[in-house]
Amino acid sequence: MTHINAHAETSRLERGKRALAEIDGEAGHKVIAALADIAPDFADYVFEFPFGDIYSRPGLDLRSREIATIAALAAMGNAAPQLKVHIEAGLNVGLSREQITEILIQMAVYAGFPAALNGLFAAKEVFAARDLAA
Amino acid sequence: MTHINAHAETSRLERGKRALAEIDGEAGHKVIAALADIAPDFADYVFEFPFGDIYSRPGLDLRSREIATIAALAAMGNAAPQLKVHIEAGLNVGLSREQITEILIQMAVYAGFPAALNGLFAAKEVFAARDLAA
Amino acid sequence: MTHINAHAETSRLERGKRALAEIDGEAGHKVIAALADIAPDFADYVFEFPFGDIYSRPGLDLRSREIATIAALAAMGNAAPQLKVHIEAGLNVGLSREQITEILIQMAVYAGFPAALNGLFAAKEVFAARDLAA
Amino acid sequence: MTHINAHAETSRLERGKRALAEIDGEAGHKVIAALADIAPDFADYVFEFPFGDIYSRPGLDLRSREIATIAALAAMGNAAPQLKVHIEAGLNVGLSREQITEILIQMAVYAGFPAALNGLFAAKEVFAARDLAA
Amino acid sequence: MTHINAHAETSRLERGKRALAEIDGEAGHKVIAALADIAPDFADYVFEFPFGDIYSRPGLDLRSREIATIAALAAMGNAAPQLKVHIEAGLNVGLSREQITEILIQMAVYAGFPAALNGLFAAKEVFAARDLAA
Amino acid sequence: MTHINAHAETSRLERGKRALAEIDGEAGHKVIAALADIAPDFADYVFEFPFGDIYSRPGLDLRSREIATIAALAAMGNAAPQLKVHIEAGLNVGLSREQITEILIQMAVYAGFPAALNGLFAAKEVFAARDLAA
Repeated sequence: MTHINAHAETSRLERGKRALAEIDGEAGHKVIAALADIAPDFADYVFEFPFGDIYSRPGLDLRSREIATIAALAAMGNAAPQLKVHIEAGLNVGLSREQITEILIQMAVYAGFPAALNGLFAAKEVFAARDLAA
Repeated sequence: MTHINAHAETSRLERGKRALAEIDGEAGHKVIAALADIAPDFADYVFEFPFGDIYSRPGLDLRSREIATIAALAAMGNAAPQLKVHIEAGLNVGLSREQITEILIQMAVYAGFPAALNGLFAAKEVFAARDLAA
Repeated sequence: MTHINAHAETSRLERGKRALAEIDGEAGHKVIAALADIAPDFADYVFEFPFGDIYSRPGLDLRSREIATIAALAAMGNAAPQLKVHIEAGLNVGLSREQITEILIQMAVYAGFPAALNGLFAAKEVFAARDLAA
Repeated sequence: MTHINAHAETSRLERGKRALAEIDGEAGHKVIAALADIAPDFADYVFEFPFGDIYSRPGLDLRSREIATIAALAAMGNAAPQLKVHIEAGLNVGLSREQITEILIQMAVYAGFPAALNGLFAAKEVFAARDLAA
Repeated sequence: MTHINAHAETSRLERGKRALAEIDGEAGHKVIAALADIAPDFADYVFEFPFGDIYSRPGLDLRSREIATIAALAAMGNAAPQLKVHIEAGLNVGLSREQITEILIQMAVYAGFPAALNGLFAAKEVFAARDLAA
Repeated sequence: MTHINAHAETSRLERGKRALAEIDGEAGHKVIAALADIAPDFADYVFEFPFGDIYSRPGLDLRSREIATIAALAAMGNAAPQLKVHIEAGLNVGLSREQITEILIQMAVYAGFPAALNGLFAAKEVFAARDLAA
């Protein structure tokens, strides 16, 4: 069991790094890098818990997970940088721009028109940056 | 064009009633009924905007829409009755109990452990009521 | 100036007590009474700051102030007991049931349909209790 | 009835456009224009639901409606661009700068001093821009 | 290193269980027990991340950590059950009733009077239950 | 009693000014100055209620009060300017950078990883500005 735990622990951080790279891509790496001189331990927690633990669970596909995250962050309306990272992530795991736009429009029902508007304008920025980089 | 608009308007309310019945089922009808003696106009808006307009849009399937709604309501953490209605709705449109549980667990990352816990306990109540009714 | 200050201070608490009695009525007194054995100092702050300072300012009439408070509490969605007290207060200072219902319906636009629904159900309870007491 | 519905539908979008122009003025048009290349359908919803449906209801005057909206947006504290649009709107429908300032000060009681401060600084920007344009 | 990781992993869950028992006591165990039939994996996450990782960090004492948690939960205002658990926890790690009351009163400044009131009434319930059990 | 009240009132504003200067320092004075041409009365309330009343209460030390405030503002996630002021304040009353970092990391548990991240990046800015000024 010790052996299994050791393996689990190793793969928790490693699994999180791989999952973050796959899901968040460049945008995720920038967040991690920005933590280096203020809270490097927290960078490890970001790898380990959200990505090593949660996104690596088999019970829900990544596309569905990003629908949930984009919806939650747009509805809360107080985490604009993370919303942009996860609009990127949604595109990375297979959501189309149209589907992301639909999720954000839908938030008008549950969190109000301002939350939907601010979410849509965040998406507009992300889409434009992608077009520019392409 | 007048004719098309007339048709559109008729189907907006009608379409909303059918969509609410399909998605929210009995739980949705209770909400509408409870509005009758305080704000019957608002009951019409519930049919028309969320269900007649938004959930009837073709760009995203109902299963994905309910993932977004469950995530948003759990993350906001201030709309317990509506979260329960949409956990019901998620089951109605094809999400499994396990998938709904995954969405709620994931909210620990974005809205904190209390939001996830309260979401999971709401799901537990909905699942238990379903088992009892079955 | 000392004299004026002394007068101001006396009237701050006194003015707050009169304002709370006028605006919140019985519902306000219950809140104050409930604080007696946990934080009586906080009861004084409730008299002094919201009522002695803010509601006593001449720049906005009480009816407009209660529109603002009902809207804010319904939109925040996490203060159901205080929302009910201020629906009462709105009626006390001259808002009609219909006007309060309009404010709550409007919150669907800014805070989402769940916030409006929960606000309307709070109003329904307050109106029913008034009818029963009448 | 078909005819009436057709008329109603036409006037819903038209009524919304007129109401938005009257209430939000130039600031509202900028929001609509910014939606054109990301979610033009959502621009229609903005016209139709908040303005065509809600602000056009007869039960509450526009001045009272803007008190409610300014209070709600300041209290939520996560929709700065929309708060500024509605401080503009408040001035457009007859609220004085002093009255808007009172509403924002009052939010310190219900949503805390930071919400009031950030609301006041938003108002300061809107008032300064108006002075500059005058 | 494998050995160290194995040890770390073992102690992460174990350390979390010990920390939760010490900090949250009986109230924490009830939460964990309630998760058994809906999301037992999430019970492990509760042990591991908040308690095994965060509360076990050496950089801040438990008394200071509970001040932070009580303040955050009272200010957010949407997690009443967790606020009560952490008022218990605050008493368990050395905060006095008076100090907890001060923290809750202070939240009036940052999150508004309703948040402070609802926090104080939660504390009143916890203190009364303690007196009854004593 | 008149004399005592006069004294109390004088010292309430005076006490608040001294407390704000001690706790918030330069950052607090900038906030007050910015209010001068929009709501000078509100500047007085800021001195009087948070600082003259609450922070001047003897039941909790200033270091503990700033732990509570930093935690609350980071968890609410919608008051970035005030969070920065209180990270400064925390340093002023004796919290170390490491302790402030711990409080912000802990908020991941209660308000989610985005709240913690945005809090940590706010702290990074404050710390960097301090280093530059030193």
